[in-house]
Amino acid sequence: MYKVRQMEIEAGMSVEALVDSMEHCGFGARRLAESVKIYEEMLSGEYTKFFALSGAMVPAGLRNVVSDLIRNGHIDVLVTTGANLVHDIIESFGFHCLGVPESNDAALRAEGISRIYDVFLRDEDFIQFEELMQSILPNKAETISGVELMKYLGGQISDRKSILRSAYDMGVPVFCPALPDSMIGLQAWLHSQSKRLIVDAFADIKQIVDICYESSNSGVVIIGGGVPKNFTLQSMLVTPKSFDLAIQLTTDTPENGGLSGATLSEAISWGKISAEAKYVTVYGDATITFPVMVAAALSRLDKRLSRS
Amino acid sequence: MYKVRQMEIEAGMSVEALVDSMEHCGFGARRLAESVKIYEEMLSGEYTKFFALSGAMVPAGLRNVVSDLIRNGHIDVLVTTGANLVHDIIESFGFHCLGVPESNDAALRAEGISRIYDVFLRDEDFIQFEELMQSILPNKAETISGVELMKYLGGQISDRKSILRSAYDMGVPVFCPALPDSMIGLQAWLHSQSKRLIVDAFADIKQIVDICYESSNSGVVIIGGGVPKNFTLQSMLVTPKSFDLAIQLTTDTPENGGLSGATLSEAISWGKISAEAKYVTVYGDATITFPVMVAAALSRLDKRLSRS
Amino acid sequence: MYKVRQMEIEAGMSVEALVDSMEHCGFGARRLAESVKIYEEMLSGEYTKFFALSGAMVPAGLRNVVSDLIRNGHIDVLVTTGANLVHDIIESFGFHCLGVPESNDAALRAEGISRIYDVFLRDEDFIQFEELMQSILPNKAETISGVELMKYLGGQISDRKSILRSAYDMGVPVFCPALPDSMIGLQAWLHSQSKRLIVDAFADIKQIVDICYESSNSGVVIIGGGVPKNFTLQSMLVTPKSFDLAIQLTTDTPENGGLSGATLSEAISWGKISAEAKYVTVYGDATITFPVMVAAALSRLDKRLSRS
Amino acid sequence: MYKVRQMEIEAGMSVEALVDSMEHCGFGARRLAESVKIYEEMLSGEYTKFFALSGAMVPAGLRNVVSDLIRNGHIDVLVTTGANLVHDIIESFGFHCLGVPESNDAALRAEGISRIYDVFLRDEDFIQFEELMQSILPNKAETISGVELMKYLGGQISDRKSILRSAYDMGVPVFCPALPDSMIGLQAWLHSQSKRLIVDAFADIKQIVDICYESSNSGVVIIGGGVPKNFTLQSMLVTPKSFDLAIQLTTDTPENGGLSGATLSEAISWGKISAEAKYVTVYGDATITFPVMVAAALSRLDKRLSRS
Repeated sequence: MYKVRQMEIEAGMSVEALVDSMEHCGFGARRLAESVKIYEEMLSGEYTKFFALSGAMVPAGLRNVVSDLIRNGHIDVLVTTGANLVHDIIESFGFHCLGVPESNDAALRAEGISRIYDVFLRDEDFIQFEELMQSILPNKAETISGVELMKYLGGQISDRKSILRSAYDMGVPVFCPALPDSMIGLQAWLHSQSKRLIVDAFADIKQIVDICYESSNSGVVIIGGGVPKNFTLQSMLVTPKSFDLAIQLTTDTPENGGLSGATLSEAISWGKISAEAKYVTVYGDATITFPVMVAAALSRLDKRLSRS
Repeated sequence: MYKVRQMEIEAGMSVEALVDSMEHCGFGARRLAESVKIYEEMLSGEYTKFFALSGAMVPAGLRNVVSDLIRNGHIDVLVTTGANLVHDIIESFGFHCLGVPESNDAALRAEGISRIYDVFLRDEDFIQFEELMQSILPNKAETISGVELMKYLGGQISDRKSILRSAYDMGVPVFCPALPDSMIGLQAWLHSQSKRLIVDAFADIKQIVDICYESSNSGVVIIGGGVPKNFTLQSMLVTPKSFDLAIQLTTDTPENGGLSGATLSEAISWGKISAEAKYVTVYGDATITFPVMVAAALSRLDKRLSRS
Repeated sequence: MYKVRQMEIEAGMSVEALVDSMEHCGFGARRLAESVKIYEEMLSGEYTKFFALSGAMVPAGLRNVVSDLIRNGHIDVLVTTGANLVHDIIESFGFHCLGVPESNDAALRAEGISRIYDVFLRDEDFIQFEELMQSILPNKAETISGVELMKYLGGQISDRKSILRSAYDMGVPVFCPALPDSMIGLQAWLHSQSKRLIVDAFADIKQIVDICYESSNSGVVIIGGGVPKNFTLQSMLVTPKSFDLAIQLTTDTPENGGLSGATLSEAISWGKISAEAKYVTVYGDATITFPVMVAAALSRLDKRLSRS
Repeated sequence: MYKVRQMEIEAGMSVEALVDSMEHCGFGARRLAESVKIYEEMLSGEYTKFFALSGAMVPAGLRNVVSDLIRNGHIDVLVTTGANLVHDIIESFGFHCLGVPESNDAALRAEGISRIYDVFLRDEDFIQFEELMQSILPNKAETISGVELMKYLGGQISDRKSILRSAYDMGVPVFCPALPDSMIGLQAWLHSQSKRLIVDAFADIKQIVDICYESSNSGVVIIGGGVPKNFTLQSMLVTPKSFDLAIQLTTDTPENGGLSGATLSEAISWGKISAEAKYVTVYGDATITFPVMVAAALSRLDKRLSRS
C-alpha cells in the first residue's frame, strides 16, 4: 500500500504544485488531483472531448474559462443548459453584478433585480437581451435542429469571449437539449408567433449519436449534473461504444438517488462509461474545483509541449 | 413569540397526527408541517395546481402517489423529466427491482442490469420498452407539440396506474421540456428515421403560458429541481401573474448557487412567485417527505369534506 | 430479485402503514423502512440499547420523544452532547421559541435573543439556567465522573419530561464526553471557583466499557454523528465484542470523509460493528426521520405485545 | 453595484493569482477569495489567532499545513479533536495508507486494517501507538488539565512535523474538549488503572476564557465544526468580548439546524462573534479549500513583508 504523503503548502506556490501536493492525500484533495491526471490525459491524447455544463456557471464567473477551452481546442462537443447560454449572450453586451444571498427578494423585485444566489441581474439587461433575440432570431423556411439554431446565434455575437461565439468560430456543436426551458426558448416562441422558426426537438440526437459512433476514444467533463450530464451519457447508449475517460465535478451526492449525484460507476452498469474507463468524481462547488483542475492540467500540458 | 411545543409520538398514530405534532417544532419537522398546511390550502381552494416532478421518483416507488393525485383532480399541469415517463411506461408492462447501491457495476452490465442507486432494471424491460415505443409512436403528417405526443402515448397505455394514462384520462397536460434527454427521445428519433414524427421544440411554451395567463390563483409543488422546476416557474415570467402557493421538496441546498437548490424566495426576485405567496422548502429525500406530506394533506382534506 | 412495489398513500393512514408501504421502494424510503425493522428487533429482543444523540434535537422538539423512550425502557445507555442537556434543563423551567432562520442576528442580540437556526432562546432563560446551575451543582470532596454529575443533576430536576430526570428515574447512565463544551461545563467551572467540584475526564470510560463487556447483544441508534457517535462506537473497541444492530439518522454523507457521515460499514473495518450486524443509515433531517421511525417501531411493538 | 468579473485561468498560474481571479465572481469562488482576505488580515494584524480543527484532517494529509502554521506563529490557540491528535502521534512514528472508499470492510478487518473513507490504517500502527502511550503517559500526583496533558505529550514526541510537538515548541496551548472521545482517552484511562493520572474535565475552561479576556482583537479559523467550533466560540460568551474575524470551512449547511453547519451570523445572535466582525463561510471539502486559502494568504503575507 502507498503511504499518505502529507501536503506541503508554501507562499508563492503554483496551482500545479498545489495539486501535485494533493496527490497522495485523502478525501477531496486526492480526487481533485486524480481529476487533473485524467484531464491531462484527455487533453493530450486522441480523445473526442465532450463537455457537459450545468449550474449557473456563467453568472458565477466561469464563462471565459469555458470559452478559452473551446478556443484552445479542448472541447469538441458542448452540451449545456439554456440558462448558461442566455447569460453568455447577456455578458456579450451587458454584465452581472455582485450581490448578496441574504437579500430581501421582494425589494429586489421592486428595484428590477433578479437574483441568482449572490449574483444580481438588472431588468434592463434582460430587456436588452429580449430585443437582441427578436432582432437576431432567424426566419427559416425549413425546420432546423437545436444545434443549427445555436450555431446561428453564435454567428450573430461579436464578443470573442462568448461561449456561443467561440463554439461558432471553432466549429464546436452546442447541444442544449432543454432549450425550451430558458429565455432563449421563450424568445424563440415569441418570435415564432410572427416569423417562421421551427426547431425539431429530436434532430440533435442524430448529430450527437453520430459523433459518438465516430469517436475512437472519448472523454467527458461533467460540471454539475442534470440534463447535460444525462444527455451526453445516454448518447453513447445507442452505440457499441462508451466513454473512456470521465470527470464529474458536482455538489450532489449519490445517496439521494438522483442522476446529478449518481456515481460515474453507476453509468458503467448502463454501458455509458466503459468498465475499463478512468473516472473520478470531485464533490464540491465547481466554481472552486473546476478552475483549479483547469489551471493544473493546462500547466502540465504546457510542460509536455515544451518538452516535445 | 410562540413556544416550541415538544413533539409527542405514540404507537398507532396517524401520519396526520405526526405532522400535527411537528407544527410547533424546529428545523425540517416544522417545514414539513408547513408544507402540509400550504398543500391543504392548494388542494381545497381555487388554485390551478402545477406539479414539477424531477428525480428518479418512479423507479423509487412514487408512481402511484403521482397517478392517484392526478386521478383525484389534485394535479392540473404536470411538468416532468423524460426519465420519469420512460420508467412510468416500463412499469405499465414490466417492473423495477430492489438492488443495492454498493454493487459491482461492471458485473451488473455483464448480467444486463442497469442501476439507479439501489434500484435495478433488466435489459429485457428496456428492450420491451423499445419495441413498444416503435409500435405505438405515431406517424404524423403535421408537426406536433411535446404535450400532444405525451397525450398520444398516454392514450396507448392501458395500465390505469400509469402517470401518462392517468393524465390522458383526466385531460392533464404533461410537459416534458427536455424530452430529447430520455429514451423516449432516442426512440422518437429512431422512429423518425422511417416514419414522420416532428415535435416542435417550442410549441409547448404557448400552452403552458396560456394556462398561466388564465389562472386566477396558482400553486406549485416541486419535487427535486432541475428543468421541471425552472420551466414551471419561468412560464409565469411572461405573464403579469405569479405563483401564490409554492412547495419545494429537495435535497439540494442554496449554497451551491444552482437552480435546484435555490430558495423559493429567490424566485420572488424574478417575479415568478408572488411577494405575498405562502411558500416553504422542505430539505430532504422526497421519497420520505412527499408521501408524508400527501398522506397528511389528504387526511385533512377528507375531514374538511366530511364536515361540509 | 424482488420487485419494487409502488407506494400507496391514503387519507387517514397510520405512520406504520406508511412505513410498510415504503419497504419495497428505493432510496431514502427503503432505508427508513429498514431502520424500523432493525429498531423493532432492537426493542423487542435482548439487546443492550445504546442511544447516541447529537444535533440540536431538544431545541428542535425531540425532547419528549427521547424521554419517553427512556421511561419506557427503550434506552439503556444515553450518550449525548452538553448542548442537548443544557436545553433539556432549560425546558424543565422555561421554553424555546419559534423563530425564523433569515433573521437579523445583530438585532436579535440587541433584543437578548440567541438563535439556533429557526428556534430562538431568550437571555432570561439562560440567566435562569445559570442561577439554577449555581444553586444545584454539588460540592464534592471526592473526584467524580461525568455520569455521576449527570445523575446528580437529573435528581435535582422535577420535570418528568426531562431527559436527565427520566434517565435518573430509570437508572440510565448519561454520558456526555464533551461536557466542557457546553454551558453546563462553563457553569461547573464557575462553580468550582468557590466550591469543590472535580470531574475526572476519563472516569466515564470505565463505566461504558464495562457495559459493553457485559452486553450479550447490543444495538445502537445514532442521531447525527459527532462525539456521541464516536464515543459510543469506540467503547466497543477495547472489548472483544461489537454492535449487532446499528441505525444512523444523519444529514452528513460519506464523501467528506468525516466521522459524522461515515458509513456504518466503515465501522466494521474498525471492529466496532459486527461483520454480521444488521445496520442502516437513513440520510435526512432527524426531526423528520426519527419520529417516523419511532412511531412505526412502537406500533409494531404494540402489536407484538397484544399478540403474545 | 460591482460587476462580476469573469475568471481567467492560465497555465502556470499561482494559487494567489487564482484566488485573485475569483474575487469578483459568485458562489464558492467568491467566498474562498473572501476567506483569503480575512485570513491575510488575521495573520498580518494584531489578532489572537484561534484555530478550531475537526474532521479527519490529519489522516487526509493536512498535518504539515497545520504544524507549519503553528511553527510560523500563525496559530496562538489550537482547539481540536482527540482523533486528529491520535493520528498526529501515529504519523510521528508510522503512517497512513492510500485506500479506497468502496472497500469490503469485513475483509479489511480480517486483514487488520481500519478505514477512514479512502485512507487505511494498519493495526500494527495502532498497537505501536498504544505501546507508546503507555510508555509516555505521565504518573502525576496532582490533578492536571487537558492542556497540560497535551503539552506533556507534545514534549515526548520528537518529530518536528508533529502538531503536538510544534505546539509544545511554540508554547501554543492545545485544547481537546472531548479528549475522552479518542484513543488517547482510552489509553489514558487504561494507564490510570495502574498509575495516577487524573485530568480535571473543566480545568481547561479557565485557561481559554483567560486568553479570550486578554485578547484585544481575535480571529478564528474553523475547519469543519463540531466540538472544536463550539468550544472556541462559547469561550467568548463569558467575556465581554467577541471574535472580530471568523472563517469557517465546512461541508455542512445551515438547513439541518446543527451547530456544524450553522452560519457565523447565527453566532452573532449569541454574542460569540461581533456584529462588526468580518466573517465568511466557505462550503466545501477543507482538504481542498484550506490549502488554497493558506497558500494564497501566505503569498500575500510574503509580499507585504518584502514591501516593508
